[in-house]
Amino acid sequence: MQTGFCMLTAGSVRTKNVMNVLLKNMLDCCTGAIVFFLFGYAFAHGEESNRFIGYSQFALTRFDNFSHAVFFFRWTLSAASTTVVSGAIAERATFYAYLIYSVCISGFLYPVISHGVWDVNGWLSAHRPDPVLGIGMIDFGGSAVVHMSAGLCGFLGTLIIGPRIGRFDSNGKPVAIAGHSASLVVLGTLLLCTGAFGFNAGSMLHVATRADHELFGGRNIVLSTGESVLVSPTMTVSRCLVTTLLGAAMSALVGLVISKWVLKVFDLIFICNCLLGGLVSITAGCATLEPYAAMCVGGFSAVVYFLGSRLVLRIRVDDPVDASAVHFGCGLWGVLAVGLFSSERLQAGAGFPVTHFGLVHGGDWALLGCQVIGMASVIGSVTATCVPLFLLLRAFGILRVSAEQEEKGID
Amino acid sequence: MQTGFCMLTAGSVRTKNVMNVLLKNMLDCCTGAIVFFLFGYAFAHGEESNRFIGYSQFALTRFDNFSHAVFFFRWTLSAASTTVVSGAIAERATFYAYLIYSVCISGFLYPVISHGVWDVNGWLSAHRPDPVLGIGMIDFGGSAVVHMSAGLCGFLGTLIIGPRIGRFDSNGKPVAIAGHSASLVVLGTLLLCTGAFGFNAGSMLHVATRADHELFGGRNIVLSTGESVLVSPTMTVSRCLVTTLLGAAMSALVGLVISKWVLKVFDLIFICNCLLGGLVSITAGCATLEPYAAMCVGGFSAVVYFLGSRLVLRIRVDDPVDASAVHFGCGLWGVLAVGLFSSERLQAGAGFPVTHFGLVHGGDWALLGCQVIGMASVIGSVTATCVPLFLLLRAFGILRVSAEQEEKGID
Amino acid sequence: MQTGFCMLTAGSVRTKNVMNVLLKNMLDCCTGAIVFFLFGYAFAHGEESNRFIGYSQFALTRFDNFSHAVFFFRWTLSAASTTVVSGAIAERATFYAYLIYSVCISGFLYPVISHGVWDVNGWLSAHRPDPVLGIGMIDFGGSAVVHMSAGLCGFLGTLIIGPRIGRFDSNGKPVAIAGHSASLVVLGTLLLCTGAFGFNAGSMLHVATRADHELFGGRNIVLSTGESVLVSPTMTVSRCLVTTLLGAAMSALVGLVISKWVLKVFDLIFICNCLLGGLVSITAGCATLEPYAAMCVGGFSAVVYFLGSRLVLRIRVDDPVDASAVHFGCGLWGVLAVGLFSSERLQAGAGFPVTHFGLVHGGDWALLGCQVIGMASVIGSVTATCVPLFLLLRAFGILRVSAEQEEKGID
Repeated sequence: MQTGFCMLTAGSVRTKNVMNVLLKNMLDCCTGAIVFFLFGYAFAHGEESNRFIGYSQFALTRFDNFSHAVFFFRWTLSAASTTVVSGAIAERATFYAYLIYSVCISGFLYPVISHGVWDVNGWLSAHRPDPVLGIGMIDFGGSAVVHMSAGLCGFLGTLIIGPRIGRFDSNGKPVAIAGHSASLVVLGTLLLCTGAFGFNAGSMLHVATRADHELFGGRNIVLSTGESVLVSPTMTVSRCLVTTLLGAAMSALVGLVISKWVLKVFDLIFICNCLLGGLVSITAGCATLEPYAAMCVGGFSAVVYFLGSRLVLRIRVDDPVDASAVHFGCGLWGVLAVGLFSSERLQAGAGFPVTHFGLVHGGDWALLGCQVIGMASVIGSVTATCVPLFLLLRAFGILRVSAEQEEKGID
Repeated sequence: MQTGFCMLTAGSVRTKNVMNVLLKNMLDCCTGAIVFFLFGYAFAHGEESNRFIGYSQFALTRFDNFSHAVFFFRWTLSAASTTVVSGAIAERATFYAYLIYSVCISGFLYPVISHGVWDVNGWLSAHRPDPVLGIGMIDFGGSAVVHMSAGLCGFLGTLIIGPRIGRFDSNGKPVAIAGHSASLVVLGTLLLCTGAFGFNAGSMLHVATRADHELFGGRNIVLSTGESVLVSPTMTVSRCLVTTLLGAAMSALVGLVISKWVLKVFDLIFICNCLLGGLVSITAGCATLEPYAAMCVGGFSAVVYFLGSRLVLRIRVDDPVDASAVHFGCGLWGVLAVGLFSSERLQAGAGFPVTHFGLVHGGDWALLGCQVIGMASVIGSVTATCVPLFLLLRAFGILRVSAEQEEKGID
Repeated sequence: MQTGFCMLTAGSVRTKNVMNVLLKNMLDCCTGAIVFFLFGYAFAHGEESNRFIGYSQFALTRFDNFSHAVFFFRWTLSAASTTVVSGAIAERATFYAYLIYSVCISGFLYPVISHGVWDVNGWLSAHRPDPVLGIGMIDFGGSAVVHMSAGLCGFLGTLIIGPRIGRFDSNGKPVAIAGHSASLVVLGTLLLCTGAFGFNAGSMLHVATRADHELFGGRNIVLSTGESVLVSPTMTVSRCLVTTLLGAAMSALVGLVISKWVLKVFDLIFICNCLLGGLVSITAGCATLEPYAAMCVGGFSAVVYFLGSRLVLRIRVDDPVDASAVHFGCGLWGVLAVGLFSSERLQAGAGFPVTHFGLVHGGDWALLGCQVIGMASVIGSVTATCVPLFLLLRAFGILRVSAEQEEKGID
């Protein structure tokens, strides 16, 4: 996964900054691992916790009865989250800015969001005894927790740091800055796809483990139709593979049509981003969407990406890897889409409550409401953390490299 | 796997066409996924079926009691099949030609072949109650179903589309057109190797699942020697890893000798193709060949590749990635080799009938006969589908890009 | 894993030798597979064996009751070992030298070392009924067996073959020879990381299988404190993931500090090598170190790498990929570190004897003694094999390419 992000960003930047980008990507991974180990995990999923944050098991102490593999899996998500940001502010941020925000995100912001949505004690969790609106938020693989938060953080970063020199001409018209290697971008995209299948399927494990098998022990859930459905992690993992595949595929195909009809050219990088956007948007609902719904969600995510990336350019924000549009835009759509399309029967199979489900399948507004609350809370908490952080970094003059250095390249 | 093909083809073409190739590779994957989901899977392995085609479970409806993971695995095979063709007609086919044949192969041709050989109801299946010649065809990982069909399709495509401009001089002598990056070719080859191990080992799962455990439930099979052998999927998977490794390794080493003694130079790309040819040829028999036989089959496949690639050039067909020789030539050899080398004891272990086995081990001609029938049926059905398809595309003028565009590059 | 090494070395050499390096890397893998199959495995882990070498199951005969998957896993380690050497003597060794030492290492040297440390009958094994010093050597993932031996072999090779032309100027001062692609180096490093997680975690399987479940069947081990600990392969695998991650991360971060404060520049390649060094050093103790200890071991390994690579340059040895410092230096540190930090409780969990453990945790000197004995025996056996081997090759004039060829490039 990290390998994928690394290649993707490396291919998207100019030759003069390749080494720098590779170095930063590798190090945010390492910093994140240490920070997440020391306190991030404790904040996110420590055994003792209130609704908003955990406060035990710092540095994995008293961690015996629990699988370290879960820590490892959660770290990969945390690392993904940090790395998305690096793409957005590539080619102009300083090394120190990078280290500092890596620590903040891996050590605090990401854990708190993750706790709220994914921990059984989290305030938005669907697995609480008393979930919000009777259902809680469904973000199976992390469209909100991982992608929206990372994409928004990247957007705010690039907004505050300002565009690269020469990205907009004197009239404010964008000037394309081509990356140095399309092969690397595609290699990165394909590695990310492989990773995404692992993430979405693996999320079952991590839900299942945390819930101490209470939720999953061969239990049956009775639907509103009277039908009884077996809670089956295995079946859910299989479904995730299929929905993820269909979502990503539809997104790339719709992207192809947009590219041909609107952009009048087959734009490889554009279609790669559509593919990624499809993966991002299907992540929230991969366990609870029917295949047809996965295709709808994926297909529309290409439109979301297209509009999002236009909008970002219109407001003269320079995001070299389009992280805002891909991760924030498509992630947001994915979160809302669950409220529309989530299927009662599949929610039962994945161990979620079934009292409320997607509007399209005849459910009420409670699930969509929860998704909106979750979306708003992610936007709020990221903004409240990142804006002061990046402004402080700018105030201290350690956010951006000097203009000469930027012209010369940071390598 | 797809990543491997993508890098391999990207490295094999000239810089001016890299973007185009990457784009096509990504999209055939996506188109294939949608088409295979909508009707390909139903044709291939729908629950209701006759000897030649399935006709239920379109779009995976009524698919509950069955693992979606199997669909996913089968799709990866289907995608591999489509992608091989793209290499053969790279650098000159139009985008529409590409889309249309992707749909035909993923949606119809591949499923029908796969049904005939792999489905328990298929007319050539070894798992029918009344298999052809009392044994049926043994194509464990798909030398015929995946590789021969894809390689032949690619060959027919490149025959009909004609050589790239400048590939043969005015006297018809071939002029080498070097790819732009050997590193990418090797990266692709190695990723394909990794993928091949997964495919060959994974094939057990997919055979085992489909057969509803009837064939595999700790059953014992009595051999002609009176020895009783336990049907063991686990043991078979382990064996596949070893035979695949030995076959590929021998092929590369024989390729090295050929390269040094015949070509008088260590040709990296040639040896990469030998390695791939070894993987292709071992695929049919990876479960039922002894290690020594795997080495023989792999070793000879380098010779098959060498002769095949010479022959293709001799008849002035231009195949940029040598897909015809690697996939069709070596695949054909692999299919026949099963008839020669297949071991009675290992057939039992993998759940195949044991009344007939390889000639070398004292079996009769029935198994070899079945392999020849299978080979002929693949050749027949691919030719009957692809020749009209490509001719039609040519007649409508949407097969090949214009000469100017080809000179300039399709990016 | 092999893919990782391949990309790493390819990125580290000059353009003129890329093809050559790729070719060699692919072929040592293939040669190694055949040789290891024919007799390497038998020497290492044949069922009949004395303390120093096995002598049955050549070519995997009479291998039925044993999983072929274990053979496959062991081969990957053997291949890794061979490939490390290739990096050290890159850009100037002949093809024949390469083939000959591949056969020697995969077929004899590696198997003998592996037998001594890892086989239950091996003289240094911790799983013998009568282990050396009452404890035997703990080298869980192979810091000594794989990395020290390979690194030392590479060092001796590069010492005997001499530096590349132009690597040291007339005053003996080193002249940097830059590799041709930093992206490939990083891609290689990250693929190796992924591989290392698999190796370290997979080592449990291979220990567990070999020991015929006697050591692991839900057995409890009583510690010196009176506490009873369940032997748990699953828990141990999970722990390996976490310790490997923390060790590698700390190493990269310490490397970053060294790079900034000592080298006065952020050197990407240097930090990549620190990361690899961290992986190497944590390999021996990944199952028996607490997380804090993993961070100490990993962090210090960056210092070891830094000093080692300085030392190598000081004595005017030219090692293009720094294999000596990374694999031998950090491997040696990792082996000794087990004697310092190994935890009694975790040794029990991983099925090792608990009578002696790390000094830091209040153990006695026996474990450290065993690690030193193991280290010395690896150094001894590698030196005794490789020095005559490379000297012979040099005497016959087939070690190094001619000066003209080296200047022109070996492609």
